[in-house]
Amino acid sequence: MSQKPTLPKGTRDFTPLQMRRRNYIFDTIRKIFQLHAYLPIETPAMENLSTLMGKYGDEGDKLLFKILNSGDFAEKIENLEKLEIENSKMGVGLSHRLLPQISEKGLRYDLTVPFARFVVQHQNEINFPFKRYQIQAVWRADRPQKGRYREFYQCDADVVGSNALLHEAELVQMMEEVFSSLKIGVSVKINNRKILYGIAESIGFVNQIVDITVAIDKLDKIGLDLVRSELIEKGLTEEAVNKLTPVLVLQGDFEEKMKILGTFLAYSEVGLKGLSELKELFSLLAQMKIKVPYALDLTLARGLNYYTGAIFEVKADGVEMGSIGGGGRYDDLTGIFGMKGISGVGISFGADRIYDVLDELHLFPESTDRGALVLFVNFGKEEQAYVWPILNRIRQKGMAAELYSDSVKMQKQFAYADSLHIPYVAMIGEKERAENKIMLKEMQSGIQTLVSEEDFFKKIEIN
Amino acid sequence: MSQKPTLPKGTRDFTPLQMRRRNYIFDTIRKIFQLHAYLPIETPAMENLSTLMGKYGDEGDKLLFKILNSGDFAEKIENLEKLEIENSKMGVGLSHRLLPQISEKGLRYDLTVPFARFVVQHQNEINFPFKRYQIQAVWRADRPQKGRYREFYQCDADVVGSNALLHEAELVQMMEEVFSSLKIGVSVKINNRKILYGIAESIGFVNQIVDITVAIDKLDKIGLDLVRSELIEKGLTEEAVNKLTPVLVLQGDFEEKMKILGTFLAYSEVGLKGLSELKELFSLLAQMKIKVPYALDLTLARGLNYYTGAIFEVKADGVEMGSIGGGGRYDDLTGIFGMKGISGVGISFGADRIYDVLDELHLFPESTDRGALVLFVNFGKEEQAYVWPILNRIRQKGMAAELYSDSVKMQKQFAYADSLHIPYVAMIGEKERAENKIMLKEMQSGIQTLVSEEDFFKKIEIN
Repeated sequence: MSQKPTLPKGTRDFTPLQMRRRNYIFDTIRKIFQLHAYLPIETPAMENLSTLMGKYGDEGDKLLFKILNSGDFAEKIENLEKLEIENSKMGVGLSHRLLPQISEKGLRYDLTVPFARFVVQHQNEINFPFKRYQIQAVWRADRPQKGRYREFYQCDADVVGSNALLHEAELVQMMEEVFSSLKIGVSVKINNRKILYGIAESIGFVNQIVDITVAIDKLDKIGLDLVRSELIEKGLTEEAVNKLTPVLVLQGDFEEKMKILGTFLAYSEVGLKGLSELKELFSLLAQMKIKVPYALDLTLARGLNYYTGAIFEVKADGVEMGSIGGGGRYDDLTGIFGMKGISGVGISFGADRIYDVLDELHLFPESTDRGALVLFVNFGKEEQAYVWPILNRIRQKGMAAELYSDSVKMQKQFAYADSLHIPYVAMIGEKERAENKIMLKEMQSGIQTLVSEEDFFKKIEIN
Repeated sequence: MSQKPTLPKGTRDFTPLQMRRRNYIFDTIRKIFQLHAYLPIETPAMENLSTLMGKYGDEGDKLLFKILNSGDFAEKIENLEKLEIENSKMGVGLSHRLLPQISEKGLRYDLTVPFARFVVQHQNEINFPFKRYQIQAVWRADRPQKGRYREFYQCDADVVGSNALLHEAELVQMMEEVFSSLKIGVSVKINNRKILYGIAESIGFVNQIVDITVAIDKLDKIGLDLVRSELIEKGLTEEAVNKLTPVLVLQGDFEEKMKILGTFLAYSEVGLKGLSELKELFSLLAQMKIKVPYALDLTLARGLNYYTGAIFEVKADGVEMGSIGGGGRYDDLTGIFGMKGISGVGISFGADRIYDVLDELHLFPESTDRGALVLFVNFGKEEQAYVWPILNRIRQKGMAAELYSDSVKMQKQFAYADSLHIPYVAMIGEKERAENKIMLKEMQSGIQTLVSEEDFFKKIEIN
């Protein structure tokens, strides 16, 4: 009995080529995290539902993958008939009432909530400020679509237990280093949630921060008049919109913008605090000689509700793509687990989008394309003895090499090298053995040369 | 409302120290896999239950973590009352009848079945022989106990699509290289399932392979007489046990054992095939100059039923611990998914046990112990400007360094360095700035030296 196997929708296999390319991204990010002294942690894929539920809103609760209790999971369902009758009476879905009886665990939805749990649970072992990074998969029962998967990786770096803006600056520097290592041209948008709050507060519409930032964002496209009428449609008063105009048309260099905003936010304590944070961050970035273009962008709001200070977003040059990285400061990460007053700031890299950018711009290094560096043709058992010591020497030098499985037709062995993009094929047949030489074929040019072992190593070590 | 967070039982967080140590193991294994031209793949955590169920026996089916269908999972339960009545009638547990209605996916239980699915699904993209490695977590709803977890990593390397014994030999070589890189002394036990089958066949008790190997294993401890009576208790005839005696008392060097077994297995085609495979493997290992002790061990049977040829197991010297690696050949990996005739051979490393061995024998390199190499004391905003370029230079050289978050008391900053085992603390205060020098403290000795930037780099680069 055979079955044609498939994968659950929204999930993916990664082939060797995809893996090498993904590892190129992860290794680059991990290296930058490590050089900046961020420390690795990992948390389990499964968390208690009590840890996860209620942390991502109602929609998030629905998107959590829940795990059936192991063993006889239905054991705890006491009376199905009663449950069904109660359901219909109460108008609550059966799933809703059944869930707590059959499931206690879920798959992690992001790395932030597990990190908060980690900090609370390990608080006595942690030396604050705690700089950690975490590169792991997360799962969301979202409707799959192009570029959106049900299993995907997040690459997060966060500092908790320090209010120093130094960390905001360092995180921007790390984003610069990651993307310059990957050779992706990017620009960084920076904003501060306190400024957005201050703007909304200054015109008397604290709850409409999002509408206001959306309006600012549209100015270039639809012009001031249409933006104004849209805001009035959204419920702002004419007076508030008039008051907002200097922010809508905000122009000039950083100093000029700061001046206008300073006046605008003069009566918002929170807004002024945001402004001063922003100034300090920009002064640190200048001091650190950040080369990647970065700028204040008042239209940047970021969806997550927990940000309370600086927010960042990175966009790639030359491709149509959402942000490929971002982050910000949150003042109360661990409060949900009863540990108050721990401020944090972090960034996250979107590995799947970075992959797509590198792919589209042909920026993956050639080395991610190939399997081994050298394939030795298999001429049979006797010749194999001559190959082992050379194979060992190649590997001791850190290069990948292999001997073909069987002494089958040369054509088949060369086809194998071709299909795996192996750049060199080495042959030590009877003739070469007699001369103590190696026949080396460069696959790209097709050129074959009879070389000594020393020259063989000189040739392949260029790569 | 706060909650004291916990983890699901049998799962673990990994702290930075544990992560660095685990990565040391994974990186070592991964490097050896890559040098031998094994190619990385990854498969999703979730597989369809139709892929997983029935592949690990009834016990395995129970140990699979099953995932509730997303959305309104109970929607498909048509009539609870009916279900309950039917259950009691049929004597089948409610869980059993409810499961297919509410769950279609499970977490992977090992890397072998997902790999088989991968090969079948991607057969047109794969170049056989296909050498792949995979290092990923697996999940089992086993009863947690010391050293046994519900989430743990497997590190597998397999070749499929070739019958060449070359690969068996190469895999033994890879085990040698992994453990010599990790500085763990090991020995490798080798056997062949066909020989075990042949032995059982030769005495007419094909179905009692396991009883026979257990008996052989006990010989040293309980002596020949007791082993013989045990086998008779297990149902073997006196005649069969007599026949088996030469195998029970098998002694001598490899050649002598081969001779005795050759006579013993003379009438078992399968047994003789196994013997000839074993001889070829040992001749290859000798040709490859394998230095790690390896030997035929007829007591080695390995639990998994799918092995059909060579089997290996690695044991660490000097610790009481089960096998820390093993593997073997299986003739029909992909048959379960309808693709016949694909033979494979593979090995697997037990990362958790290797961790415990390294820990017990104090073999983790000192570098896994520490966070950054250098901490710069924070003396305030003005001094920071002098630190950035030096930090950049350190990181460009591939070393990890950081500046403390705030200009708090020195004592606190040093305590941070201490707790993270940072070996060097650098101070650039007003005095040092004036002299263009760096005060460098070696934390272990406590010695402080005033050095130029060039001497600073000479000092730290030793590490």
